[in-house]
Amino acid sequence: MYVVIVYDVGVERVNKVRSFLREYMNWVQNSVFEGELTKAEFLKIKSRLKELIQESSDHIIFYSSRDRKYLGIEDLGTPKADTSNII
Amino acid sequence: MYVVIVYDVGVERVNKVRSFLREYMNWVQNSVFEGELTKAEFLKIKSRLKELIQESSDHIIFYSSRDRKYLGIEDLGTPKADTSNII
Repeated sequence: MYVVIVYDVGVERVNKVRSFLREYMNWVQNSVFEGELTKAEFLKIKSRLKELIQESSDHIIFYSSRDRKYLGIEDLGTPKADTSNII
Repeated sequence: MYVVIVYDVGVERVNKVRSFLREYMNWVQNSVFEGELTKAEFLKIKSRLKELIQESSDHIIFYSSRDRKYLGIEDLGTPKADTSNII
């Protein structure tokens, strides 16, 4: 499955969320990660994020598509350099 | 079609982008809009955003699904109050 995660979390938690997500997904924009995940990985990410964030003030949205081919992805402009993903 | 737009634009352009997108879509998180669009609306939004942003430094990603039912959407935590959408 293909997953897009967008997050709006307190500045004191951003680095933890970001370094965790980088283990599984591609950082494509300031608060946006994308990537191919198994169902097990997706469950693991959701439960770990639940531990990392403060649910009363932070917010994360998960968009998922059964297959990458069902999700159109286009962009405009220039991605920030620091979201480059060294694989 | 169901569209999610995430943007990372210069602070001097954010308000223009945000008030334009609010005419068509729901503001669901700091730099994230979602909504049901016709193909014509989607084309119009992309071309208007192209005029509004500075492509050398700003970045916008468009995720689209042919039908809302092909896109899983879940969230964690608490959406910011000011993204409430008065319809």
